Amino acid sequence: MRTELCDRFGIEHPVFGFTPSEHVAAAISRAGGLGVLGCVRFNDPAELDAVLTWMDEHTDGKPYGVDVVMPAKIPTEGTAIDLDALIPAGHRDFVERTLQELGVPPLDEDAHGAGVLGWLHSVARSHVDVALQHPIKLIANALGSPPRDVIEQAHEHGIPVAALAGKAEHAQRHVANGVDIVVAQGYEAGGHTGEIASMVLVPEIVDAVDVPVLAAGGIGSGRQLAAALALGASGGWLGSYWLTTAEYAESVPASATQQALLAAGSSDTVRTRVYTGKPARLLKTRWTEAWSQPGAPEPLPMPLQNLLVADAHQRITRSGDPSVVSMPVGQIVGRMNEIRPVADVMSDLLREFDETLTRLDKLR
Amino acid sequence: MRTELCDRFGIEHPVFGFTPSEHVAAAISRAGGLGVLGCVRFNDPAELDAVLTWMDEHTDGKPYGVDVVMPAKIPTEGTAIDLDALIPAGHRDFVERTLQELGVPPLDEDAHGAGVLGWLHSVARSHVDVALQHPIKLIANALGSPPRDVIEQAHEHGIPVAALAGKAEHAQRHVANGVDIVVAQGYEAGGHTGEIASMVLVPEIVDAVDVPVLAAGGIGSGRQLAAALALGASGGWLGSYWLTTAEYAESVPASATQQALLAAGSSDTVRTRVYTGKPARLLKTRWTEAWSQPGAPEPLPMPLQNLLVADAHQRITRSGDPSVVSMPVGQIVGRMNEIRPVADVMSDLLREFDETLTRLDKLR
Repeated sequence: MRTELCDRFGIEHPVFGFTPSEHVAAAISRAGGLGVLGCVRFNDPAELDAVLTWMDEHTDGKPYGVDVVMPAKIPTEGTAIDLDALIPAGHRDFVERTLQELGVPPLDEDAHGAGVLGWLHSVARSHVDVALQHPIKLIANALGSPPRDVIEQAHEHGIPVAALAGKAEHAQRHVANGVDIVVAQGYEAGGHTGEIASMVLVPEIVDAVDVPVLAAGGIGSGRQLAAALALGASGGWLGSYWLTTAEYAESVPASATQQALLAAGSSDTVRTRVYTGKPARLLKTRWTEAWSQPGAPEPLPMPLQNLLVADAHQRITRSGDPSVVSMPVGQIVGRMNEIRPVADVMSDLLREFDETLTRLDKLR
Repeated sequence: MRTELCDRFGIEHPVFGFTPSEHVAAAISRAGGLGVLGCVRFNDPAELDAVLTWMDEHTDGKPYGVDVVMPAKIPTEGTAIDLDALIPAGHRDFVERTLQELGVPPLDEDAHGAGVLGWLHSVARSHVDVALQHPIKLIANALGSPPRDVIEQAHEHGIPVAALAGKAEHAQRHVANGVDIVVAQGYEAGGHTGEIASMVLVPEIVDAVDVPVLAAGGIGSGRQLAAALALGASGGWLGSYWLTTAEYAESVPASATQQALLAAGSSDTVRTRVYTGKPARLLKTRWTEAWSQPGAPEPLPMPLQNLLVADAHQRITRSGDPSVVSMPVGQIVGRMNEIRPVADVMSDLLREFDETLTRLDKLR
């Protein structure tokens, strides 16, 4: 399977793999796709720099990219301490009470973190600055078009910019801002997502813009990848599907999360604002359900909601209880039923893609 | 494009077209697909009988089917008058107040109808009895598996039964009950629909059952039909897409509805219980929005909700105001931008399907 994007990026297969794990990202690139490392978790630019150096050493010279989280308009900004003051006490009380009810133990005194600051504009900018010092081949932005000067900065380094879009008009705006590739992210996708499903969204965006489109949402098999290409996409953008790879387990020793993902069906996700303040699809657990009970507060806007739940996420992770995990994942989770190496996932995708084309050809 | 279903039904193309209009259904069958006439609107079995006789005379001997609305478990039953007593006064007041606020005029004294009784089990059964007196080739049930004795009744006449499913476990239950074909109805579809999008749902159901699967939801182009077949479906089930055909205009002189559909984009739908009491995707209008305002009551269960809004639907239709129409339609409405004959819609679907397969073949 080769599309225009294979030549453009020097990759064998038009499979773009978004992942927070450098082990997964490097393995995707080594397997002939384009591994795209999510940067939002790096509060300290030096830490990102070290991880990208590791990527440079473990990708066998194959191309890779990075993903940042940067709104086009600069949002509420400030240090974690400034922002903390904006979080209502009632919200904090609800989180504390809920965790107690769910049986999630408190953190040790010294374990409190700063939360994820990658949602802050200044931090996301530092990610771009650091990434451009490495031989990256793509900068993707999870929140759509980055500010124009960031796009220009990338282009000066010869690096194309991809932006996620959940509506055709957003895709058009991104392209008008200078974005080179649109990731059409359907309703069924994990993480930040809109309301239009991939079957409708992908051809709509393909028809609306004159740049290549990647299909995101609901892809975890060769049939789904073939469907995405049938819809007009130039490749697939897979995120959730790598969360049950052996390399993810290596990178994030969160066996409770993988255990919960392996057990979940396609109905076990929910689109909710509780993770970041913007609608994002998560695994449906006792934690997400608590936020939809009567009396639960409305989630706060980005970036406050993520700061509010940052300690809760740490507590949940340490609790090791699969029934309370807080994890972005798409409806494809129903097809994530075993832990496998990235290389096996990739070869299965390609084999079934080929079988699908053979099957379709016989229908003519 | 030929699948096993073409031979089974004696049709040229595996395109199944659900529609409440006999003009559309007959035109779909004449164009080589299988027209499936929705029966829910026929309160009087004699009226359905007359319309099916018209179908027999206008399908040039081509096969067609019918669609009934029949839950497997027999629900609240009774005459319209019995059921009326179960509708709370507060709900009636809300409907009346809302219509006034929306500027929808009252009906003439003699125009009040009985509401749509096809949701009632006894009425749906009469539809099956009548339809089996005609040379129908398929009975489909919009609410999943019909009761076993109805399936047996159809099979005694040699007629296969199709059932809509929004989850793999529902599809498995339908097949265990004797259903012959599953219609996998994705989140993006119009009318009654679940939460799992077609991209994920179709292969999940294909893998879960050993009968042919039709893909419903999000299909209005050859690319989408090719995607559905790539996902493993044996054909497409299209409903919404016929609402902007010339034949639909002929059957239902509701120009306000078609006007509203032509103007709507893929974001202009909403999944809500206000139409029947079960979640169904409708065009988002001032009417549906009124039900999500603070203070609006929760919709009633099926079949009460439809009885509650029956007069309102008549008033809305007569008002001729596109901004208040109450109409089931899928996200594909964004691609419904002109009034065209069914034959043109069909030939465009087939042409683009073929182009898509040619394009995919070149990627190998």
